[in-house]
Amino acid sequence: MKTTRIVLASRPTGMPEDENFRTETVELEGPGPGQALLQTLYLSLDPYMRGRMSDAPSYAPPVEVGETMCGATVSRVLESTDPALQPGDIVLGYGGWQTHSVEAIGYLRKLDPSTAPVTTALGVLGMPGFTAYSGLLTIGRPQEGETVVVAAATGPVGATVGQIAKIKGARAVGIAGGPKKVALLRDYFGFDAALDHRAPDFADQLAAATPDGIDVYFENVGGPVFDAVLPRLNKFARIPVCGLIANYNDTELPPGPDRLPLLTSLILRKSLTLRGFIQTEFQNQAGEFYPAAAEWLSEGRLKYLEDIVEGLDNAVEAFQGLLTGKNLGKLVIKIAD
Amino acid sequence: MKTTRIVLASRPTGMPEDENFRTETVELEGPGPGQALLQTLYLSLDPYMRGRMSDAPSYAPPVEVGETMCGATVSRVLESTDPALQPGDIVLGYGGWQTHSVEAIGYLRKLDPSTAPVTTALGVLGMPGFTAYSGLLTIGRPQEGETVVVAAATGPVGATVGQIAKIKGARAVGIAGGPKKVALLRDYFGFDAALDHRAPDFADQLAAATPDGIDVYFENVGGPVFDAVLPRLNKFARIPVCGLIANYNDTELPPGPDRLPLLTSLILRKSLTLRGFIQTEFQNQAGEFYPAAAEWLSEGRLKYLEDIVEGLDNAVEAFQGLLTGKNLGKLVIKIAD
Repeated sequence: MKTTRIVLASRPTGMPEDENFRTETVELEGPGPGQALLQTLYLSLDPYMRGRMSDAPSYAPPVEVGETMCGATVSRVLESTDPALQPGDIVLGYGGWQTHSVEAIGYLRKLDPSTAPVTTALGVLGMPGFTAYSGLLTIGRPQEGETVVVAAATGPVGATVGQIAKIKGARAVGIAGGPKKVALLRDYFGFDAALDHRAPDFADQLAAATPDGIDVYFENVGGPVFDAVLPRLNKFARIPVCGLIANYNDTELPPGPDRLPLLTSLILRKSLTLRGFIQTEFQNQAGEFYPAAAEWLSEGRLKYLEDIVEGLDNAVEAFQGLLTGKNLGKLVIKIAD
Repeated sequence: MKTTRIVLASRPTGMPEDENFRTETVELEGPGPGQALLQTLYLSLDPYMRGRMSDAPSYAPPVEVGETMCGATVSRVLESTDPALQPGDIVLGYGGWQTHSVEAIGYLRKLDPSTAPVTTALGVLGMPGFTAYSGLLTIGRPQEGETVVVAAATGPVGATVGQIAKIKGARAVGIAGGPKKVALLRDYFGFDAALDHRAPDFADQLAAATPDGIDVYFENVGGPVFDAVLPRLNKFARIPVCGLIANYNDTELPPGPDRLPLLTSLILRKSLTLRGFIQTEFQNQAGEFYPAAAEWLSEGRLKYLEDIVEGLDNAVEAFQGLLTGKNLGKLVIKIAD
């Protein structure tokens, strides 16, 4: 069986360019014992992938140059060496940016297409949703009546943060880029307030939208939004930090002054908690997350938005758009029916 | 009864100057119902007082211009309106920079000079000791075999942090300024490693002294020590932030580049916890702290060092020295026998 795959051709500096990737078709080996041969139906594109393209120290090893770009996938089983998995079954795996993959069966999760669309396993019922759930509830700990702010709020993490904040009785303020996204925040996702970070008076708007200050800022973007949030933070505010997409393509630090002492001084004066995390460290909560999220979904209390792009050929361009906010909702590449 | 007191004459810009203070002798009113008239024996000088001289927003209101400088005091009761407190009793109060004070009896704590020298109520058995205890154990949570780093380590907070870290089975690395303090860290306080932050190769020394990285950095100084600590932090490291003395006199932010994104990126990549605090928020732990610390003290597992300066007239100069590390141990002004 052949696979067509996109490999990392060279490490990007700043925004990834087309030339940093190469498409090739190669023969797949296997499946060997304990493995399955899969056809990729959907590939998840997520901001963390920018980090894997770099060899700077991080929480996960980088994709090597010449290797297939990594990524979560929803796939159809073509061949299986284990009777627990039958040809035709749909599974969540980590096949990467390619049309077919051979994966260890022990790492695959069988999906039930009758309970929810299978693509939700890449978004609201998958890693992004669990990132929102675990970071918000374990680190953010929103209390009834508190104000929770989140950016990239039409994205799968941000939208889930805002809606779980509401479910927990907090006030949710969502931030996104452009009027279309802002309207969705209010009208579709039900945020209490929705702001456009591109507005020239964004900081003033944020102040007006948070009359009681900010108790939880779920940080998944970094950059100017964080700057505007800082002066609004209440004493004892909690800041789960799960992403800094605004900084991912930075090749050098911004010019001064050096605001590091400003941040530490705020942490001291306001007794702030900043806590970086990735969802894997909270895996012991996965068992409570999936049934809870599935129930909220079925009740209509948890909504999601997907941006499905057709064809592996469009993955690089779609990923570039993800880093600049061009997508609307969870970005997924559809590779096969 | 008259009191001689040091009032804040004007708000300092940068390092407090003599002209920011004024000594005056005034008539004390009272004691009224529920109050006691006290003679100050010892005045505590602490870095947080620099913050109270400014009207920048902080966790506590500033000392007003014309008001007596605030401060914890050990005093002798001269007159009491409550039989629970007798003339001659020694109490911990908050009399400020003056020779006599009238204070509410409800806020005074009677000291027993037979259990420990009364000055310890201003240091190792007082607010600084409790700051170390509560911040280290609640936020830092050192585990056996982990590495705990603390600066200003001959001071009452730092020295207590290091020794409690040892009591909890962690490895303690102390940082101080100058060879005399460094020798005390090793020989008197029993730190596993002791470093001089003034050494030109301090960052290299810190790396060598933390071969397994840093799991807890108890932040009570800020500045270049924090910069050297950052690259040594382990994944999931905890950073209680209780003071930033290196920054207190800064009148503007340092020149760039802007390292704020560097810090947030580290928080993300290493799943760090930064948590500002003041010990008042942990008051519910005071009941466990005092007996534990008194026992460690009597067993010789918790040592302390005091720098006692004679005379209220020397308070301003002594406080200036505190901000530049001239004192050696807990700085206390002796005002009367």
